[in-house]
Amino acid sequence: MKKNIYLFGPGMGEGNAGMKELLGGKGANLAEMSNLGIPVPPGFTITTEVCTYYVQHRKYPSDLGNEVEQALKRVEKAMGAKFGDPESPLLLSVRSGARASMPGMMETILNVGITEETIPGLIKKSGNERFVYDAYRRLIMMYSDVVLEKAQGIDPEEHGIRKQFEREIEETKKRKGLKDDTELSTEDLRQLCQTFKAKLKEVLKVDFPGDPTEQLWESIRAVFKSWMGKRAISYRNIEDIPDDWGTAVNVQAMVFGNMGENSATGVAFTRDPATGDKIFYGEFLPNAQGEDVVAGIRTPQPLNEATKAVLANELSSMEETMPQIYEELNSLQKKLETHYRDMQDIEFTVQEGKLFILQTRTGKRGGAAAIKIAVDMCEEGLISQKEALLQVKPEQISDLLHPMVSPKAERTATKLADGLPAGPGGAVGQIVFTADDAETQSKEGKKVILVRAETSPEDVHGMHVAEGVLTSTGGITSHAALVARGWGKCCIVGCSALNIDVSTRTVKVGGKTLKEGDWITLNGTKGTVYAETLPLFPADPEKNLSYKKLMIWADEIRGLKVRANADTSEDAKLSRKFGAVGIGLCRTEHMFFGPERIKLVREMILADNKEMRQKALGKLLPYQKEDFIMIFRAMNGMPVTIRTLDPPLHEFLPHNKSAQAEMAKQMRISPEALREKVELLSEVNPMLGHRGCRLGITYPEITEMQVQAIMEAACELTKKGIKVLPEIMIPLVGTKEELHNQREIVVRIAEVTKKKYGVDVNYLIGTMIEIPRAAVVADEIAEFADFFSFGTNDLTQLTFGYSRDDVVKFLPDYLENKILANDPFQTIDRKGVGELMKIGIQRGRLKKPNLKIGICGEHGGDPKSIAFCHQIGIDYVSCSTYRIPIARLTAAQANINSQ
Amino acid sequence: MKKNIYLFGPGMGEGNAGMKELLGGKGANLAEMSNLGIPVPPGFTITTEVCTYYVQHRKYPSDLGNEVEQALKRVEKAMGAKFGDPESPLLLSVRSGARASMPGMMETILNVGITEETIPGLIKKSGNERFVYDAYRRLIMMYSDVVLEKAQGIDPEEHGIRKQFEREIEETKKRKGLKDDTELSTEDLRQLCQTFKAKLKEVLKVDFPGDPTEQLWESIRAVFKSWMGKRAISYRNIEDIPDDWGTAVNVQAMVFGNMGENSATGVAFTRDPATGDKIFYGEFLPNAQGEDVVAGIRTPQPLNEATKAVLANELSSMEETMPQIYEELNSLQKKLETHYRDMQDIEFTVQEGKLFILQTRTGKRGGAAAIKIAVDMCEEGLISQKEALLQVKPEQISDLLHPMVSPKAERTATKLADGLPAGPGGAVGQIVFTADDAETQSKEGKKVILVRAETSPEDVHGMHVAEGVLTSTGGITSHAALVARGWGKCCIVGCSALNIDVSTRTVKVGGKTLKEGDWITLNGTKGTVYAETLPLFPADPEKNLSYKKLMIWADEIRGLKVRANADTSEDAKLSRKFGAVGIGLCRTEHMFFGPERIKLVREMILADNKEMRQKALGKLLPYQKEDFIMIFRAMNGMPVTIRTLDPPLHEFLPHNKSAQAEMAKQMRISPEALREKVELLSEVNPMLGHRGCRLGITYPEITEMQVQAIMEAACELTKKGIKVLPEIMIPLVGTKEELHNQREIVVRIAEVTKKKYGVDVNYLIGTMIEIPRAAVVADEIAEFADFFSFGTNDLTQLTFGYSRDDVVKFLPDYLENKILANDPFQTIDRKGVGELMKIGIQRGRLKKPNLKIGICGEHGGDPKSIAFCHQIGIDYVSCSTYRIPIARLTAAQANINSQ
Repeated sequence: MKKNIYLFGPGMGEGNAGMKELLGGKGANLAEMSNLGIPVPPGFTITTEVCTYYVQHRKYPSDLGNEVEQALKRVEKAMGAKFGDPESPLLLSVRSGARASMPGMMETILNVGITEETIPGLIKKSGNERFVYDAYRRLIMMYSDVVLEKAQGIDPEEHGIRKQFEREIEETKKRKGLKDDTELSTEDLRQLCQTFKAKLKEVLKVDFPGDPTEQLWESIRAVFKSWMGKRAISYRNIEDIPDDWGTAVNVQAMVFGNMGENSATGVAFTRDPATGDKIFYGEFLPNAQGEDVVAGIRTPQPLNEATKAVLANELSSMEETMPQIYEELNSLQKKLETHYRDMQDIEFTVQEGKLFILQTRTGKRGGAAAIKIAVDMCEEGLISQKEALLQVKPEQISDLLHPMVSPKAERTATKLADGLPAGPGGAVGQIVFTADDAETQSKEGKKVILVRAETSPEDVHGMHVAEGVLTSTGGITSHAALVARGWGKCCIVGCSALNIDVSTRTVKVGGKTLKEGDWITLNGTKGTVYAETLPLFPADPEKNLSYKKLMIWADEIRGLKVRANADTSEDAKLSRKFGAVGIGLCRTEHMFFGPERIKLVREMILADNKEMRQKALGKLLPYQKEDFIMIFRAMNGMPVTIRTLDPPLHEFLPHNKSAQAEMAKQMRISPEALREKVELLSEVNPMLGHRGCRLGITYPEITEMQVQAIMEAACELTKKGIKVLPEIMIPLVGTKEELHNQREIVVRIAEVTKKKYGVDVNYLIGTMIEIPRAAVVADEIAEFADFFSFGTNDLTQLTFGYSRDDVVKFLPDYLENKILANDPFQTIDRKGVGELMKIGIQRGRLKKPNLKIGICGEHGGDPKSIAFCHQIGIDYVSCSTYRIPIARLTAAQANINSQ
Repeated sequence: MKKNIYLFGPGMGEGNAGMKELLGGKGANLAEMSNLGIPVPPGFTITTEVCTYYVQHRKYPSDLGNEVEQALKRVEKAMGAKFGDPESPLLLSVRSGARASMPGMMETILNVGITEETIPGLIKKSGNERFVYDAYRRLIMMYSDVVLEKAQGIDPEEHGIRKQFEREIEETKKRKGLKDDTELSTEDLRQLCQTFKAKLKEVLKVDFPGDPTEQLWESIRAVFKSWMGKRAISYRNIEDIPDDWGTAVNVQAMVFGNMGENSATGVAFTRDPATGDKIFYGEFLPNAQGEDVVAGIRTPQPLNEATKAVLANELSSMEETMPQIYEELNSLQKKLETHYRDMQDIEFTVQEGKLFILQTRTGKRGGAAAIKIAVDMCEEGLISQKEALLQVKPEQISDLLHPMVSPKAERTATKLADGLPAGPGGAVGQIVFTADDAETQSKEGKKVILVRAETSPEDVHGMHVAEGVLTSTGGITSHAALVARGWGKCCIVGCSALNIDVSTRTVKVGGKTLKEGDWITLNGTKGTVYAETLPLFPADPEKNLSYKKLMIWADEIRGLKVRANADTSEDAKLSRKFGAVGIGLCRTEHMFFGPERIKLVREMILADNKEMRQKALGKLLPYQKEDFIMIFRAMNGMPVTIRTLDPPLHEFLPHNKSAQAEMAKQMRISPEALREKVELLSEVNPMLGHRGCRLGITYPEITEMQVQAIMEAACELTKKGIKVLPEIMIPLVGTKEELHNQREIVVRIAEVTKKKYGVDVNYLIGTMIEIPRAAVVADEIAEFADFFSFGTNDLTQLTFGYSRDDVVKFLPDYLENKILANDPFQTIDRKGVGELMKIGIQRGRLKKPNLKIGICGEHGGDPKSIAFCHQIGIDYVSCSTYRIPIARLTAAQANINSQ
């Protein structure tokens, strides 16, 4: 028979910290703390397996009733009270506890066990009638909300029973001229309990249960049901938590922080979660229950003098008001951090002078804090270098690479609204409501933030110039989120509190109305909006000593090399600053867009024959050569992988009429002739069209010019004694014949050029593997390749048959319906795309055992994808400049994890 | 040491028929005939390896000179004459002979060995001075043309030396009032020889060689060079012959058919190559050399009475004029056909009453003839059923499935011009020069043939309504050819003799001028154009007994099942007539285009919400249901695979302004709103966009409606006692989750519908495998699939990253540069696409060993692809109706070949 229940509490812990899967994070921690002698209120955990069973069968395992009864007896014994007993009634909390933390997503019911029958006993025992009626009205509120509404599938919203109850409290306070809930009298509270029960009968047509056992079982059921609730499901989608993990339920003896002035409740962190500073940091509320801290109705007081300083909170601290309790807590927090080897987030309650630890868990923290904590802990000897490296989430590093809202300023700022964090960093700017306004005003030198209900491809020009983007609808896969993430731009989406009216250029939030030109601040890493200008910290990781130490450790341990995708010498320089050991992708086409160059490119495209094309290309040559000289110089002997021309030629021609007319005039041809050419070059599916090496094969003179520019640049620098290592990469190869064809051109031009300069330059010739066929015939292709570089963007497009430009039409549905677990353009699809990569690597190395293999799609900067690259034997990842440090850390973690 | 030379001739054959690779087809045959005792003139074959060596090294193997000398001695001995000997000179022919027949592509030089010094001896020996000078002037003409011009890389064209020589002959004849070359006197010919030599000196600055050995060696070299000539290369591209096969050279004693009235030369077939009738069929010219027959200057005479009747040629036959020789020839032809077990094409010469067989090879034949010959030979006991099945090329069957130009009429018709055969069958119609004219005039009830320099996507509407298409430029991968082949429409491309002037609506061909409205006939199977209306045989294979027998044999032996791609009950009926055993692909979207339906489809697309969409779909339901009832009825219990909606929705909306305005009016919405919707639905890469099962997932109501229509139709018929076997196929699946999602919808609706009707209907649910990812994760997908069907069109697009709509931009270059050996949309790319298919089959059957697997891309009708499908274990191919018999035969051949 399966054990469905595990006890915890001083001297009675049945589980331990390793049983997270079965007991959930909270349950496992409570068990572990019991074992450690931490004063947790006793209770028991119903396992996650019961949840899964319940979700599948809509009923409980047959033995559960008995087990609960037995466990309850043990708890009753430990607390010296009895559940439902009129004399000395035990009260219970019923809380969810999933394997992964899902803060605020799951349900909790407190004070279970108060009934009209147990009230007198409770009053007698506590000597605090007001507290009892306060607890009762809280139970009625929570139970009605969670058990009687949400668990029945009713979405509470504005007209939910809880809101109605709250309005009753407000009315009572108004009527009596009170400001704070704590000012309500015992009679007020008793009256409210009666009013609530009547309301419940009226609105939901049910009685509040007078049977404590019914309260308990219905609360347990509600928690299990909340696992499949809408909010929980969407949170799991975001955080990648599988449905079948289920949640555990923790039933625990209640302890009360609201039993007078020698009671309190609070939350503490073993280090400052915003900065990582080694201070014991936290807040508490005297004479209050935990929900009061979370709800933010009363302003919490600082835990100690250190917190007081950080928060500039002048209220008296626990260190001052309850020094002994504080000392006990302080010594417990040190014990907990040392035990868990990580910064802890601790919930505690003081009941009439006695400290209880309700919960401890790994504390959430920002990027800078995470790095500082990891490095500090390592230097304190608490954790090893490897543990320090694993403690920082790679994405957290990006906090250091983007401007960040000052955490200090943020603590004291008033939040305007919350949304989903969709693009990292902070942004400060003036509100604009249309993409065109964004463009116009940014041209005038203004810093703007684009605020829209949602964005579409037509808004892209406005998004581009904006400091940040804020939308009221859409999730993390909405258009705005996808675009912003791609650019590394600060973005918050789905900020549903916003009520935008474009026609009047105003946005209402709560009671406030903001208009165009008003300043706001976005924290895109957290998803928070402020209606004021907060100071931003500029990105300068080099000044962060913890960061520098961590990256040195990472570089020492990682196996994968990290290169940059860089098209300019500026990018190249920055990439070296960020620790790249070479360029893995230099896109030559980006060099074609300068004003003087685009003219020559167009001349080349319009050429009627090879001679005219060659003439135009000849004029482009010096520009390209100069580009390469600059990049080679910047990389100073590190390998530079240069991809020959990739996009279809029509991308270089204007597509709207007026631009065409202008170009025709400039090129001295008729607009009709130009239009005809544009027409001729246009394609039904440009992604699958005349591009990549297909261009170099039909117009070999393009490849010839590019190779000449690369090799002349390389030869000139070599002559000057500067080391150069060009790696020429042919894009979009699907057959060995294509690579063979282009390789011959490269070799021919390279040899002629070297001879002309009279120097020797080592160079490699390789290919992108981005066409599914290339992966399948990689053995053939390897014959002509010195290296492979997986172009996972195109490989993903082709393996799935998804156009990256169009996928937004169905990707949100796919993610929501769990057709896809992730956006495959963000994280490599291991089963499909990854399988093709494995085939490509295996077959390529079958032919050439030492074939150098890299990846230069955007996945090269994605932690999960980098870990996969490490697993399958890739030599280097190449990613956009700002992802380099992230890739370095991920590569180190991948190596540690595979050891 | 490698043997470079193989002798042949009575009693001296060194090779045999099995040595085609080394000796070429002609050389191997000559050796084999020598062994059989066939009277071939003696000679020797220089191997194909020498050609390959020569092409690579631009010189001969070192021993070749000696070997030629030795072989020549043996030939001299056998003929009792000596090469270059003034008394009894031997003359030689030098001919190419590749492994595969390349008629008219390669070079031949006759009469090698005539010099001023050997002329007297020749005259003495032959007693025919006129013949000698005639032979000499022929040698000079051919040698100048082949050795001195073409082999030097000069493209002769209109101003070539040969043309100039021919003009000299014409002038002489004109001056002397002669009609025929044979009327030229000895003196005329001698004079012409002198004129030719002077002209040669004047134009090409060279002397005609007086050294017979120089003549021989230069002729051999010219043949080798011709292998890499432009014409030969382009022929090989078309016929898929590898360059490295090389050609052999056959040096053979000359025998003369022009040594007076008891000499002759001719060509014969062991059966009529046009009809397949079992008659000895051929033509001959008395007192002539072989080239006279080929050149068509003199009208050949019928070989026998049977030929006379067929050709309606009243000239006297060889059977009449040379009865003894004819009898010898007749008995030899029977021997040859029996020996080679196939219809033979025989070249022969009679030299002063003595018969020589110059060559025999498998005779080319039309489709109807091929089938008749194969079946007849089998029934005569000459070959087995399997041999008969292998003897017919699958493509030849299409001759019976398209209207064909009457072979009889074609024999007597005057050819206007030749082009490349690009679309099968015959077509008769009136010339039009633009696609718009084609459309207008065809609406007026005219049958038109679209004549263009080349076609582009803008011409498609005109091509569609035309009986046939004729272009003056472009090869077999030009736009016209690709489109016509796709439709099975009669088409001739690259007919370079045409000089088209669209402005005057005229086309000049040679001396003739045709104008709009003139009638022409195209034979698209052969590539021949006639300036007259020839009778067409309608396609009615059922009346062809040989065909019916052959197909019965094929069905008995084939392993692969053959199904039809059919979208209407008419197609379904026709497919059964052509022998399909089910429908492998029924595209439901084609049913959406009827005038009443498209309105409802558009209503569905414009719907703002699910309810409105469901309403529109509800109105579509009865139409779809009726379609399925008709198709199920037509197939009467055979399986019918129905694919749910596949194309993106924007395909159902009009894209030009006026059509949009009309639609907006009809749908009672503003044109702006419609334009906005079109805009919203438009995609950058529609091939990779919101289509296939992606539609069914975002709009489950579409799948629901389609399944309901299918199942209601199935249930109604089942109730009436008609057997129905629907197979519902989900398109564009890339993940198991997609198929799972759609499968649940199908099962749900199907079960509800069955219950509603109270009957049981067996149905299957399967998926297209057309996304590379689907092949890679086929094991996962198989879990939810009762069958797979490879959609090789899309699989090819995605595996290569080629858009079928755009590939024409580089495919011709790719084929020309041999980047690709074939158009992968015509023939499955075995290494890439085929490898993914193998992976898909292997993984799919790993999960479900008995998984039914088919293919329904257009490759399902391509013989090479069908053979591959057989090899990799596919269960059935599905192809367009007209390809069904071709597929049946190919399937049989594949099975025979794999035994």
